[in-house]
Amino acid sequence: MTSSDIATLAQQLRVDSVRAADAAGSGHPTSSLSAADLMAVLLGRHLRYDFERPDHPGNDRFILSKGHASPLLYAAYKAAGALTDEELLTFRKEGSRLQGHPTPTALPWVETATGSLGQGLPVGVGIALSGKRLERVPYRTWVLCGDSELAEGSIWEAAEHAGYEHLDNLTVIVDVNRLGQRGPTRHEWHLNAYADRFKAFGWHAVEVDGHDVDAIDRAFQEAASTAGQPTVVLARTLKGKGVAAVENREGQHGKPLPDAAEAIAELGGEHRVHVEVREPAAARPPHAEGTGHFDLPRSETGDKVATRGAYGRALTALGTARGDVVAIDGEVGDSTRAEWFAKEHPERYFECYIAEQQLVATAVGMAARGWVPYAATFAAFLTRAYDFVRMAAVSGAGINLVGSHAGVAIGQDGPSQMGLEDLAAFRAVHGSTVLYPCDAHQTGRLVEAMADLEGVRYLRTSRGDTPVIYGPGEEFPVGGSKVLRSSDADRLTVVAAGVTVHEALAAAELLAAEDIPVRVIDLYSVKPVDRRTLREAAERTGCLITVEDHREEGGIGDAVMDAFTDGSPVPRLVRLAVRTMPGSASPEEQLRAAGIDAQSIAAAARLLVEQGVVR
Amino acid sequence: MTSSDIATLAQQLRVDSVRAADAAGSGHPTSSLSAADLMAVLLGRHLRYDFERPDHPGNDRFILSKGHASPLLYAAYKAAGALTDEELLTFRKEGSRLQGHPTPTALPWVETATGSLGQGLPVGVGIALSGKRLERVPYRTWVLCGDSELAEGSIWEAAEHAGYEHLDNLTVIVDVNRLGQRGPTRHEWHLNAYADRFKAFGWHAVEVDGHDVDAIDRAFQEAASTAGQPTVVLARTLKGKGVAAVENREGQHGKPLPDAAEAIAELGGEHRVHVEVREPAAARPPHAEGTGHFDLPRSETGDKVATRGAYGRALTALGTARGDVVAIDGEVGDSTRAEWFAKEHPERYFECYIAEQQLVATAVGMAARGWVPYAATFAAFLTRAYDFVRMAAVSGAGINLVGSHAGVAIGQDGPSQMGLEDLAAFRAVHGSTVLYPCDAHQTGRLVEAMADLEGVRYLRTSRGDTPVIYGPGEEFPVGGSKVLRSSDADRLTVVAAGVTVHEALAAAELLAAEDIPVRVIDLYSVKPVDRRTLREAAERTGCLITVEDHREEGGIGDAVMDAFTDGSPVPRLVRLAVRTMPGSASPEEQLRAAGIDAQSIAAAARLLVEQGVVR
Repeated sequence: MTSSDIATLAQQLRVDSVRAADAAGSGHPTSSLSAADLMAVLLGRHLRYDFERPDHPGNDRFILSKGHASPLLYAAYKAAGALTDEELLTFRKEGSRLQGHPTPTALPWVETATGSLGQGLPVGVGIALSGKRLERVPYRTWVLCGDSELAEGSIWEAAEHAGYEHLDNLTVIVDVNRLGQRGPTRHEWHLNAYADRFKAFGWHAVEVDGHDVDAIDRAFQEAASTAGQPTVVLARTLKGKGVAAVENREGQHGKPLPDAAEAIAELGGEHRVHVEVREPAAARPPHAEGTGHFDLPRSETGDKVATRGAYGRALTALGTARGDVVAIDGEVGDSTRAEWFAKEHPERYFECYIAEQQLVATAVGMAARGWVPYAATFAAFLTRAYDFVRMAAVSGAGINLVGSHAGVAIGQDGPSQMGLEDLAAFRAVHGSTVLYPCDAHQTGRLVEAMADLEGVRYLRTSRGDTPVIYGPGEEFPVGGSKVLRSSDADRLTVVAAGVTVHEALAAAELLAAEDIPVRVIDLYSVKPVDRRTLREAAERTGCLITVEDHREEGGIGDAVMDAFTDGSPVPRLVRLAVRTMPGSASPEEQLRAAGIDAQSIAAAARLLVEQGVVR
Repeated sequence: MTSSDIATLAQQLRVDSVRAADAAGSGHPTSSLSAADLMAVLLGRHLRYDFERPDHPGNDRFILSKGHASPLLYAAYKAAGALTDEELLTFRKEGSRLQGHPTPTALPWVETATGSLGQGLPVGVGIALSGKRLERVPYRTWVLCGDSELAEGSIWEAAEHAGYEHLDNLTVIVDVNRLGQRGPTRHEWHLNAYADRFKAFGWHAVEVDGHDVDAIDRAFQEAASTAGQPTVVLARTLKGKGVAAVENREGQHGKPLPDAAEAIAELGGEHRVHVEVREPAAARPPHAEGTGHFDLPRSETGDKVATRGAYGRALTALGTARGDVVAIDGEVGDSTRAEWFAKEHPERYFECYIAEQQLVATAVGMAARGWVPYAATFAAFLTRAYDFVRMAAVSGAGINLVGSHAGVAIGQDGPSQMGLEDLAAFRAVHGSTVLYPCDAHQTGRLVEAMADLEGVRYLRTSRGDTPVIYGPGEEFPVGGSKVLRSSDADRLTVVAAGVTVHEALAAAELLAAEDIPVRVIDLYSVKPVDRRTLREAAERTGCLITVEDHREEGGIGDAVMDAFTDGSPVPRLVRLAVRTMPGSASPEEQLRAAGIDAQSIAAAARLLVEQGVVR
């Protein structure tokens, strides 16, 4: 396309952005107008993409990190022939694919859901890493950021990672329109402030007038020809560019233009430019080799094995079975035991250093490219990336997250290292699966099963050794549970998971000696829960004691209720959970102090018997 | 102290670090040894601190961001005469104040709990901001970071904020010992890599041999005399310095030395240096002016007012009543309505731009300095700072967090902007309070009440206007609820909060017309819950329907159970909550699609009647 055609395309993108927001009665046209020339040059001259084959392995990848500028994205899709004008005007209406912020669950050309600022670049880094180190396909990942979102630390985590990994297949375009939501940004139009920062992190930086299509074109060429480092194109733009009523004015963020018809006229009226987007490079999909057979690592019954170790061994075996499995870790691979995978499959191991947001974003990016990522760190530190997990669910990303060192059972290190809120956080994520194994074989089977589930999958592992109680042939369906002890005489049921399963079994022994038979359920699948087994236990024993190495709120105690919230009768319930702030102490002391050890469970059961609460 | 004395002190700190970890059988002596010279120079020559008066307003503030090097910190406290040798050797034992990672709940000289890396600096920025802009006291904030944690984006969020605010009262010391937990860091001993990054963010950077006490002394002097910008002292050190068996070796992270006696001998044996720490500057505590009277902003009953607007008005009034209230916002003050406070009390308003980790860290830092901070952004984006909230609870920090734009009721913007996991996340935080008002007066009263609570307080506000249903004189005790409709004939109880209160009231009207009287409870205090009222409703009506603009897990449905988990009879329960991934749609369409509008509540009630589940 000629420069003149590009300029016309840019005006069309502006007009369509204005029209879409006007039809919706909401949206962010001014944030779209500032970036229209950038998008026109990208679409008309640089992007290599087959809109009819969004899964083409050679397609470039485009991420609108400033997701609120969705009208611009949808206008570009229309210009490329992927959307009709009619659909464009469904923007932000119920049932439309054109949501306020783009998401891949609605549109096949969207790589990842955006709208929480500062996430597009980290996910783009994950995709670019896949392109460079796994797929080895010469597609380019383009990320369009706003200037406001450069305040997010996650941007600099990603910048550090991309610079360190020499991701020259990644180009970030920053639409520096100077105005955030409520006023000017910190650095306004000081492009050099941003350039200095990116350069310090090992990037090539180009400053450009974001409304000069030839200059933009040269900048994108420079980015593509820069070897050994990622490039950032810092573009000085005007928010609301082209419409005098809003151009470069405060107080015009996130609302339709005051007079759309006048704005459209000012922008030169409607155009009908159709863009022939460049063909993607010929590329073969990556070849995922593997034996096809998962060989469960075996232990002897009664051996003491930490579930984190079982994770490391199982993941390594799964990596042998499946060529599409990748492992990601946050500089704690010797603790999470992911390092065992690294030794066996170094080409599929990704070290993210102590940067949990980038850890999860890398997983999301790799899942977008078809890999099956397992990302691990301490359960406590996954809270650092909770917004990324939330957005992964919006994306419909299939990722496996593994939190080790769960609960007070870690012992001396104290509360900063204890995952005590993780079950609550992960249960609340839409479409998530939450698994919490108590022994090595169970861990191995769950690691295998996770790979093929939908959505966000979370596995909680423990630091300390626990006895192997299941044989290697045992099956552990997701949504199931195991009844470890039961009799017709059971007076109540203890529901446990992870370390507390072993405490519950010991408590049951103590109580049996006192002629108080109790049922014990291993609730390894915290979400979804095994409604049938829990209901049966409720009917037979009338009372459930839940015991968990987690806060009282949102964990196993609450998960059990998922079996009883349809109006059916609810059993009596007693919760044993971590109710105080732990200090340093041995694992045994911690369990006792929290009141979740065998003695505490037995004491609670005894009290219920004495009170006549149970039969 | 002479340089020779400082060197002896450093060896003593090393020996005591080795002894403490040896006595504990765990801990991080090698990470302590690398920073011992830095700590000795700081303690012996620069820190101004009265250990007998940790609340002295002129005290410098020291934060051990690399909290795992706690043996070094405790050794320093001992050298200053604040701890006995006997107590030093209780390190990491049950009941000891000397926890694995330092926390202010145990020791009065600790400013903030650390142990989750990358948090000490952001909190230090909050303290330095307080010193410079609120207290105007010339204390210095010193933060000792590890090199590994510089991979955390939160470090660069904080660096950006400190540079922008010209915090020349802040000095960061980085112990660049080259080795992380599982191996070398990204930049090993390339101090210039870190210097370039900090300089790009507006800092003064000094590189130094971290084992040369005179060079360290000069660097700290340079930091103190640098005006207009914060300083980072980048110190090249050896992990395990002074003990050949571990010095600069991989695989020696986080464990006692193999032979403590030999190490102590190698370090020159035990010393008994007592440090006379410099006196703090004479300073007056900041004067907190205020009228002392909170004048609740009034609305007319039936007026439609958004609770986010009520927050903005109430906070502004509270700022007038109390001089210790400060407001912090994440570049969305026009949405959270915190900007109204900014107009009235600009000197107590802090703009953190789009950096939610720094937003919460600023609140934690200001709370540590005695202020009552209210930090606001969209509820969805507070998830970005969940690890900071978790650690705030470990610190025992009294902070108010306000999440606006809760739930699907925001409408067209879609799921990326909807807080749908926030109640689950905040309920699981130890010692937290979770409040969710439905009208303007209730919001105002809760904003007032929050100020004086302990721990993390969370207020959830809504975007859209809702009718004012309570009079200005109504009281809303934390832990209470309001029964909005009841009769002896009630067949079930609807428990709602926030926007769903109004849906529940409308449903009750519909049902009343069908001769199905229902009780309606406004559960504005989600944690703690009003056990008495919920139990009474359960006894009288036998069945509770919870309805919430939140995910099914961890929210109001689970909170209600907190009233019934002591083994007492549990009513039948039905949960209405957001079970799908919303797209864009109007607020009314969203509530309907989620099945939490009045019609859905009425339909659920009717079904329970038809099924004979309720009386």
